[in-house]
Amino acid sequence: MGRVTQRHKVIRIRDGQVSARPDTLVAEEPLEIRLNGRPLAITMRTPGDDFPLAAGFLVSEGVLGGAGDLQNIVYCAGATQDGSNTYNVVDVRTAPGVVLPDITLERNVYTTSSCGLCGKASLEAVRTTARFPIADTPPLRLEPELLASLPDRLRQAQRVFDRTGGLHAAALFDEEGRLVDIREDVGRHNAVDKLVGRALQDGRLPLSRSVLLVSGRASFELAQKAVMAGIPVLAAVSAPSSLAVELAEESGLTLVGFLRGTSMNVYAGGDRVALRAGTAASGRG
Amino acid sequence: MGRVTQRHKVIRIRDGQVSARPDTLVAEEPLEIRLNGRPLAITMRTPGDDFPLAAGFLVSEGVLGGAGDLQNIVYCAGATQDGSNTYNVVDVRTAPGVVLPDITLERNVYTTSSCGLCGKASLEAVRTTARFPIADTPPLRLEPELLASLPDRLRQAQRVFDRTGGLHAAALFDEEGRLVDIREDVGRHNAVDKLVGRALQDGRLPLSRSVLLVSGRASFELAQKAVMAGIPVLAAVSAPSSLAVELAEESGLTLVGFLRGTSMNVYAGGDRVALRAGTAASGRG
Repeated sequence: MGRVTQRHKVIRIRDGQVSARPDTLVAEEPLEIRLNGRPLAITMRTPGDDFPLAAGFLVSEGVLGGAGDLQNIVYCAGATQDGSNTYNVVDVRTAPGVVLPDITLERNVYTTSSCGLCGKASLEAVRTTARFPIADTPPLRLEPELLASLPDRLRQAQRVFDRTGGLHAAALFDEEGRLVDIREDVGRHNAVDKLVGRALQDGRLPLSRSVLLVSGRASFELAQKAVMAGIPVLAAVSAPSSLAVELAEESGLTLVGFLRGTSMNVYAGGDRVALRAGTAASGRG
Repeated sequence: MGRVTQRHKVIRIRDGQVSARPDTLVAEEPLEIRLNGRPLAITMRTPGDDFPLAAGFLVSEGVLGGAGDLQNIVYCAGATQDGSNTYNVVDVRTAPGVVLPDITLERNVYTTSSCGLCGKASLEAVRTTARFPIADTPPLRLEPELLASLPDRLRQAQRVFDRTGGLHAAALFDEEGRLVDIREDVGRHNAVDKLVGRALQDGRLPLSRSVLLVSGRASFELAQKAVMAGIPVLAAVSAPSSLAVELAEESGLTLVGFLRGTSMNVYAGGDRVALRAGTAASGRG
């Protein structure tokens, strides 16, 4: 696993019993993402899958829309004073002809504030940068039982979680509920970026017949990443936020929350969930 | 609660039973933080406690060290085209004489990359910007039983969590285990910023005799915020990351993870946890 985990001595206290033993920690390191040589963002991430992470981040930002937009990704060498490579700086080089938006914090701040910083402005920003519509034709139609089975499949597939307890997971499933890919990271947004970036590298964008499952809550940022990748269904084990639900409604994204056991809440896009007519009525009878 | 929660219609599925009902969502909106009129950062947050959030963010960034550094905080009016206030833009004005670091994303990116972006550089950045040492004199000495009691006190005090399931919580306790303050947010870093910012406004920094408890994992960022506020003990219900542990060791911060029931792991600063001699041996006898 390389740098994905680290060993560290820990004092364990269990019901008053004290013991010292090595424990496995999830690794966290900063990653700087450069675009054609220009520093763009720093994220704290779990090392591994750095190229997919950088590519997926740029899908979310509306810079990359397909494998053809990408020339290559490299680790920047000689980043330290002694010339050694930290493997914490990646440069994403776009193919000739790709239009580069002027994405800097400075610009983002001024743009959004000049039009009144609010949830509506955040929704508008996704609308203007989206490269694909959410276009599943014919529309997905998922049985609740299929959705309910996904968290167990995620947990079975998680490789590092059981050892550290410190990782968020994100998984892609196809419409039959088969696991397509799973990624883990200390940051939940990074796990999704890694999934989406790998799909871009493999020429699988937009992910128009996929379900994205995340191990925690569904924030605006995660809903945004689903929309930007053309994913029609976002399911979360925990609660969604108000702005995530608003974005889902506006974008045609199906948003499922509190997916636990045989239960779930459908917050938006309920037409993709196969509800049997009269189920509620017969349940009362 | 105002904008802290929103009502939204949801389709609930429970064991095959379908019902439509209103649900309570945690509100999420962007907040732009300006420093003396200059846009500095945007964070997605739960509205409420916006002034403490902005102040705490600037403590974490090393700009503010005490109430005397703060002149005032205002909502910027007229931010929308029609002149209405979105209450999503705050301007923090510093007192005369406060030295303003040149904090922009551009600068941070260049600075960290020029010295080799890595965990060590992140630790170094905290060391150079910290306004207070962690200086609890006499050193805190906490019984494991006291630490074990804190998560229940946090849950009892959480006001919104039970209704939405979507909020992270952060709480400050004194050395007797009494709850000093609790804040909630969709973003765990925001909840900590709100706590620290309130303490700054009240003239309580550095928080040198406090325990900070967070409801989730302990990342580098949360450990950084504890160190910057002079907090000697950070306890988390879930796992810490490798870099959080490294920062704790380097800064003299006590870091407790997996604080559940009567169990916990002490990753750094174990001298502040009162371990009875021979406990482990007597447990085996």
